[in-house]
This record gives sequence, structure tokens and C-alpha cells, in this order.
Amino acid sequence: MKKLINDPYQVVEETISGILKAHPYHLRMAKDSERALVRADAPVPGKVAICTGGGSGHIPVFLGYVGPGLVDGVSVGNVFSSPSATDMLAATREVNSGSGVLYLFGNYQGDIMNFEMAAEMAEMEDIKAQISIVKDDVASAPRTEMERRRGVAGIFFAYKIAGAKADTMASLEEVKAITDSVIENTCTMGVALTPCTIPAAGKPTFTIEEDEMELGMGIHGEPGIERSKLLPADRITEIIVEKVMNDIPIDSGAEVAVLVNGLGATPPEELYIIYNRVHHILSVHGIKVYRNYIGEYATSMEMAGASVTLLRLNEEFKTLLNAPAFSPFLPQWRTL
Amino acid sequence: MKKLINDPYQVVEETISGILKAHPYHLRMAKDSERALVRADAPVPGKVAICTGGGSGHIPVFLGYVGPGLVDGVSVGNVFSSPSATDMLAATREVNSGSGVLYLFGNYQGDIMNFEMAAEMAEMEDIKAQISIVKDDVASAPRTEMERRRGVAGIFFAYKIAGAKADTMASLEEVKAITDSVIENTCTMGVALTPCTIPAAGKPTFTIEEDEMELGMGIHGEPGIERSKLLPADRITEIIVEKVMNDIPIDSGAEVAVLVNGLGATPPEELYIIYNRVHHILSVHGIKVYRNYIGEYATSMEMAGASVTLLRLNEEFKTLLNAPAFSPFLPQWRTL
Repeated sequence: MKKLINDPYQVVEETISGILKAHPYHLRMAKDSERALVRADAPVPGKVAICTGGGSGHIPVFLGYVGPGLVDGVSVGNVFSSPSATDMLAATREVNSGSGVLYLFGNYQGDIMNFEMAAEMAEMEDIKAQISIVKDDVASAPRTEMERRRGVAGIFFAYKIAGAKADTMASLEEVKAITDSVIENTCTMGVALTPCTIPAAGKPTFTIEEDEMELGMGIHGEPGIERSKLLPADRITEIIVEKVMNDIPIDSGAEVAVLVNGLGATPPEELYIIYNRVHHILSVHGIKVYRNYIGEYATSMEMAGASVTLLRLNEEFKTLLNAPAFSPFLPQWRTL
Repeated sequence: MKKLINDPYQVVEETISGILKAHPYHLRMAKDSERALVRADAPVPGKVAICTGGGSGHIPVFLGYVGPGLVDGVSVGNVFSSPSATDMLAATREVNSGSGVLYLFGNYQGDIMNFEMAAEMAEMEDIKAQISIVKDDVASAPRTEMERRRGVAGIFFAYKIAGAKADTMASLEEVKAITDSVIENTCTMGVALTPCTIPAAGKPTFTIEEDEMELGMGIHGEPGIERSKLLPADRITEIIVEKVMNDIPIDSGAEVAVLVNGLGATPPEELYIIYNRVHHILSVHGIKVYRNYIGEYATSMEMAGASVTLLRLNEEFKTLLNAPAFSPFLPQWRTL
């Protein structure tokens, strides 16, 4: 295991410590948990709060999206494992302004169980909590079995639009409704080239040959749909975009947002080579890219690979996608 | 070689193509070269222009820093090799508003030769051109032999402050003077854990054992100062910060800017663990971190490793560091 760390069991604590030292104007720890972080100015009066959380090892997912126009609080689990319900509740208490809290997270059993428990605990404290679960990985299950679909990088679009909607002082029901609609219209598929290593485990999550790739692999190394020889980037991109567009049909003339996400070790150069092909394929289909995001938005530590996410847009999504947002990991200050 | 690419000889062209498709409002190709990019709105009337350039494989260095408050134009070489003087001249022609051009780049022989030639060619076209060369890597030579020092991630601070100074409509001489002063006050040292592979070469630039690291290695794999067993992150950070502070003495009570830079494959979690220690060490010395930058600012494709840069601040540096700047790779929209 080759990592720039100290004690493998202190990775999460030391990461949080570094983040709090680096961004004291943006983030603070919740009073009741060292695994819960909230916006420095939480709660925002009158606003529905968004809370997220999940296992560590995916920065900027999850704690990198705490900030104005994004999420208000986050609970932080160990690497690749869910935070506890009490951590979630600790964040909830401090972000709630009285307008309620939306729990927005990926479709993993531990997270669901704990967020549901946190929602019940919150209700007992008279905090309204609702849940939206991101299920965007088309490789993990067919659309007819959405409940089995994993949440991956597409959570970024859910954060962005949920956060912007909440900033309009919409109600909890309205924020949840548009968030669920974003989730319905977001599809992702990825490719992995190398594994990653959980610090406390000390060995790679899976093995893969030097000339192989795995299409559709999950961000924790969950099995994908096919392991094969490494293909050229254009061909990989074609397979991914075809699979995504089969899942959410997009008409000629329609507009989409595109996220080309690096899983950790993939250079930006390669992400742009992928985007080059995504843009070409969409153009051939008469589809316009309204806005693109290219970089590391949801990682798996030092895993090499990438994912492509498409969000099918409507006018409200466009407006909200364009709204200002800020976190130390995602500064968006102009519209295009 | 495990890369998401197509033809290894087309990596640079396809990267540029992807970047132009992704960021058409920010960047355009120069008329006279497909290896020269400039701000979409170049030239900016009355403003001194900053031009940079160098080998590919380091994004966001170099082309990721083209934008308002940063650099105006860039010439793009093959992976790890200098662009040509004619590419540099092509960018120069389109960014020059009549106020002159500062060439700002790292201390590598090919780049120096070509930028000097470009400066002569520019003079023949009545474009004033001056040169500032970044030499921040303390591991590459002692301060008494600055001419041998390589330029690494510290170029970021030079871009940021040069760009902000130029935005004040300062003269070419003034922009060069403050840029050279930034360079004098900027020191970097890095550590490499794994090599990277030049696509057209197809094999790693060097070999290193699974339990080894190399302190002070250059961003192209140039030899560092010591190869040893991998140490804990805190210890590595202590060695680096001590070496940097021996080079630019920083008084108790002084302020610095800190850049913790990932070389490509290093997860953000690890960069924050390093920052956690940098901040601690500086605090112990009574030094205040005025502003920090943590992320991938100068990479070596899929190399694992990191570097730490300190910039010793004065009031003018602080003001200029805080000025707004924007590129698709570096949006900075608020002051702290």
C-alpha cells in the first residue's frame, strides 16, 4: 500500500482535521459529533437544509459539497462505510432552520438504514426529514429494477439542483420533488482500470490484469458488466454513452448536462479525450451540451478510471444548474 | 501502459480538441498555430499580456491557467517537451494589445531557448516581450545555484500574481518586477511515489520499489535528493517544510500562502493529511497561513505524489493573490 498517510486508522480524522484547518470560513464541526460537518453559517434562516453523507474515500463526495447553493451538512463514515445515524442527526440538528431537512445520498444499504433511522430520530425532535436516494449507475441494474441501482457521480447534479432549489426558499416537498426528478433523469456509467486500497485493509479491493479494464464497475469495486482488454478511449466512450442513452432516451434538439468524472488517478488530459468523444457523439444525435463538468467530482481514492453522466435537462433544471454555488471543491461563480 | 487514450501520438491534439469543445467561451485557438491557445476575448485593450507554455502532461499547467486574472495565452508542446518558438509567437501576436507581453514559464532548457527565440521574433514585429523564469524546486539545486533550479508547482503563484498585477494596467516592467519578486519568494519541494508513462514511449519514466519514495523528484521524473523507504505523511511533510523554510527564512508573525499540490494519482484525502501537518508546523513557528490552495495544480499525468509550496507574503502579494481570477480549472470568486 503506497499512500501518503500516517496511521491507517486515523485517515478520516486527519483528513477532517486538515479540511477544517484549510477551510475554517466554510465548514465547522457539529457540536454533537466529530463525524458531522456543517456550513459555517448554518442554519440558513427559512431555507430547507440538505444533508448528505456516506463512506469516506470519495472526495469531493461527500463533504466537499458543503456550501452555499449546495448541501448544508454532511456525516462522514469510515472509508467505504456508512456514518452512523447519530452522526447524521448531529448534522441535522445544526442545519435545520425549522423548514425541514432533505437527506440526499447514494443507494447503499448501510446509508439507507442509517438515514432512515436518523429521519425517525429527527422527527422525534420535531425536525421534518425527507429522503431522496440517488440511483444513477446504469451498469448496476436495469431501469426496471431501479431499487438495485447504485448511486455514483450523478449525485453531483442532484446536489447542485437541490441546493439551488432550496436557495429559492422552496418548501421541503418542492425540494424533494425536483431532486427526485433530477435523479430520474440522471444516468452514469463508468470504467475502471485499476483498483484502490482501503487504508485499514492494506490491500487492493480487487485485482485486474495490466491490459484489462472493467466496464460498469462501481466506485467501491463492485462488479461491472464486462471485463475485457483495454479498448481505445473513443470506443469505451461510445459504449458508455450508448448504454446511458438507451436508459434515458434523449431527443434530437434536446439539451443535456455532461459530467466526465475522474475516479482518482486518471489525468485531466484523458478526461478531455473522453469529453471530446462524448461531445462528438451527442452532436451527431443533434443533442446540445448545455453545460459540462470535467474533473474529479466523485473519486475512489487512487483508482484509475472515469465515468460519464448525462442529465436530461428542462428549463427549471437549467436555471438551477446555473445558479451560483460555492464549496472549497466546487466554486462556480459564473453561468457559463 | 494503462491509459484512457486513442492513438498515443494524438493525445495532445485530442486533449486540445476536448478542451476547446468544453470551454468555447473561455479559450480559442490562435490563427497561426494549432498548438497555441488564447483567451477567447484576447487581446485585452491596454493590458500587458502574460504568455506561458511548456510540455503537455501537467494540466492544469500550462493551458489550464488561461483566463481573466491569470494568463492570456499558452503554447502547447508534446508530452514533456517544449512547444516551438513559432507556436509561442502565434499566441503572442493575438494576446498583445500593444502594451507588451511577459513570457512566464518554468526553468527548462528547451523552453528557455524557444521563448528567447520567440521574444526576438516578437521584437521584430514590434511587440515588446520580456521573460520571467520560475525556479522554485529547492530539491533541484541550492539557492546559490538558482539558475539550475527547476520550475514546478510554484508557477501557480507567479501566474496568479502576475495576472492580477497586469489587470491593474501596470506596465510590462512593473508586471515583470513583481513576478520576479514572487519567484524569489516561492519555494517548493515534492515527493514521488510512482512514475508516469509518456504515451508515445509506452513505458514508465523510471522504476521505484513498492515500498519506496523519492524526495525531491522533479515533475518529469528528474532525480531527487533521496530515495528511501516510504515514511509517514507527517514525517515527509516535516522534511519538506524544513527544507523549504531553510531556503526562504520566514519570521514568526509572518504570513504565507501554501499550495499542497497533488501530482496526479494522489487522493485529495492525502493532500489534506499533508496540509494538516503543514498548518501545524507553521503554527508552531508562529507563521500564519493567509491563504491555502489544496488540489491538483501541476500534475505529471498518473504520477502519485505531492508537493508543498510556500510563498512568503507581503501586502501587495496578498492583495493580488486575493484578486478574482477565472479559468475552467481555477475559478476563484471570493477572497477567502
